[in-house]
Order: sequence, then structure tokens, then C-alpha cells
Amino acid sequence: MKKKGKLVVISGPSGAGKSTVVFKALGERDDVCFSISATTRKPRPNEVDGREYFFVDLERFQEMIDNNELLEHAEYVANRYGTPRAYVEQKIAEGMNVILDIEVQGARQVYEKMPEAIMIFVVPPSIDELRNRLEKRGTDTPRAIEARLIRARQEYAEATFYDYIIVNDDADTAADELSAIITAEHCVAADRMEYLKDTD
Amino acid sequence: MKKKGKLVVISGPSGAGKSTVVFKALGERDDVCFSISATTRKPRPNEVDGREYFFVDLERFQEMIDNNELLEHAEYVANRYGTPRAYVEQKIAEGMNVILDIEVQGARQVYEKMPEAIMIFVVPPSIDELRNRLEKRGTDTPRAIEARLIRARQEYAEATFYDYIIVNDDADTAADELSAIITAEHCVAADRMEYLKDTD
Repeated sequence: MKKKGKLVVISGPSGAGKSTVVFKALGERDDVCFSISATTRKPRPNEVDGREYFFVDLERFQEMIDNNELLEHAEYVANRYGTPRAYVEQKIAEGMNVILDIEVQGARQVYEKMPEAIMIFVVPPSIDELRNRLEKRGTDTPRAIEARLIRARQEYAEATFYDYIIVNDDADTAADELSAIITAEHCVAADRMEYLKDTD
Repeated sequence: MKKKGKLVVISGPSGAGKSTVVFKALGERDDVCFSISATTRKPRPNEVDGREYFFVDLERFQEMIDNNELLEHAEYVANRYGTPRAYVEQKIAEGMNVILDIEVQGARQVYEKMPEAIMIFVVPPSIDELRNRLEKRGTDTPRAIEARLIRARQEYAEATFYDYIIVNDDADTAADELSAIITAEHCVAADRMEYLKDTD
């Protein structure tokens, strides 16, 4: 029997260094991949359907919602984005651990539809440190940084349903923790009860 | 605040390769140590009190039971053995993850007294493979091997309260899994809620 993968939902405030952590872990394991979203946005040059996104029209997107084909969906800048359940389930059946990098409200939708998902919240060591990182990054105005910090505090208050918290002080340590969580979750007794059956 | 360690209880049938797995993991981490048992057995030459065992007399051992100073205790060959709670708690307070290698009935006692302990059951890939390993080891008579297999089946049936199952097919992989479980358990959200407090 082929070992099934897991859905790994990762959230955390902008500036927590989530992507760095995820890409490091991804580079070290061949059983981890990203989820691919469906979107109504038009493909950009070089974007390939089924690689960056599944490109669909609004009618098809609505149909996916109606048929419960999406684990979560949201709208950004007049475009719609969603996570197709079928793609996630196919990858899991192939033994891949599928990473879904998503904000807290979408994560909650996924958690309700797939409660077996591994829910991970990535944070910086403190809100002060988050401010430092956003200032150092230099891509936001002071006003935008304040808005991000307010948003982070909101997310923290809502992040009550996560299984794990990774504190990204050092990115290598954080990536090791992400990888350890995936490995450990595959050792959970409920998933391995067949080894306690007497098949002698 | 110093990060506290965890109690890690490890059980599994003789021949599963538990010790190999534990010693490998121990060699790779400086935050893991063994528990030290109290015993009424006389020290052997070269054994030091507080290193191999805490050597106590029968009266003191009974006092430890009566005062609830032991996480578990049992009798082997007319000697008594037990796990002093104070030593485990001291090491945990120092940030060490304390390994307790113990059979299923003792593990259940510990689990009842410290339900926050990480309970891990180590098994070979199958009972057939266990038989192979015991035969290859060559230290047991065929009769003793049959007795061990019967004992293993009993332990499997009782091993319903473990959190994790490590299948020791390859010892390096199994040791990585043990280490990953310890790392992941330190990421559990309940232990890191202070990072979601706004201490800005």
C-alpha cells in the first residue's frame, strides 16, 4: 500500500518569512509540493495552465464553488482564487505532502472541509521583530507597515485553530521544524495501526 | 524563559531495535538524555549511584511508592525498579527531553501520571521480520523466540494508548523519525501561545 501524503496548511503574517521557510523545506524533501490554485485571472506571459494556476472562467469557477470542488476560495483585486480539492487529493494519493500557503480565513475554510490537514502558523519572534523586518525590507511605506502590523494582530487573534506554531527566528531552524512536523505527522499512531495487526 | 523539555516514553517488543534507534537519536542531539531508575538491586562494580541507577534499600523504595515519588515501578528477579519523578522533572526543567525505555505496562502507569508525556511504540515491519531478527541475533532458543513472539503480540494488543508508532525497517530512518517527533512536539501550538500574545 502506497503511503498517502498530507495536506499542510501554512499561514502567518507578511514578513514572518513563511516563503523562505517553505522553499527551504521544499528543497530538502522530494515528498513535498505546492498546491495549485484555480483562478479567474488571465494568464501572464510564460504562465502555463496547471503549473502556476488552473486558469478558469468565472462560470466554471462558480460551478466549482457550487459543486464543492474548492477547499477554500477568496477574491483579490476583482479576481477569484480557490484551492481545487481534486488536485490536492490526487497529490496526496500519490504520496505527496501538499503545501497550501494561505491567510487565516482561507485556512479556516480548509480546516473545516479537511480537519485532518496539518495546520501550521509561522510567526516572527515578536511583533517588534516583525516591524524591524518590514522596515528593513523597505518595500512598504511607514503607513503600510502600520497597516500590516494591525493585520498581523488580527490574524494572531484568529489563529486559534492551528496545530503548530513555528517561530521563525532562524530560517534553517524553522525549515527543520516544518520538515520535522511533516515527518512526525506520518508517525501518528492512528495512521500506522496496521503495524499492530498480527499478520504473521 | 528557558524552554522546558518533554518526557518521551518508548516501548516496543524485544528485537524491534529500540535501543539502536534511541542511541542514534541521542548521539545526534544534545537536548536528549536517558531517565535514571531507582532500584533495590545492589550496585555492580563500576556502577555509580545517580549514573546507572539510584541505589536505594527496600524501605526507601517503599517510601517512594507511598509518597508518589515514582512514575512507575515493577519487580524483576526479586529486585524492584522504578522511575523517580523528581529526576525526570528536574531534567525537563533544564530543557532536556528525557527518554524512558520501558515495557507497555510501565508505560501505561507513566501515561496515567504524566499524560503530557510523548508515547512512542517502536515495532519491526512485521511479526515475521521480528522472528527473523530474533533468529539472526542467535541469543535465544527456538522456544524462547516463540515466547518472545507471544509476548510481542500481547504488547501489540495493549499498545492502544501510544501517540506515535515508529516502524524500524531502517535504523537511520527510524532515528530521524524519533528526532522529528521530539522537534515537532516542541512546535505544538498549545506550548507556544505566548508568541501570539501582542507584546509590542
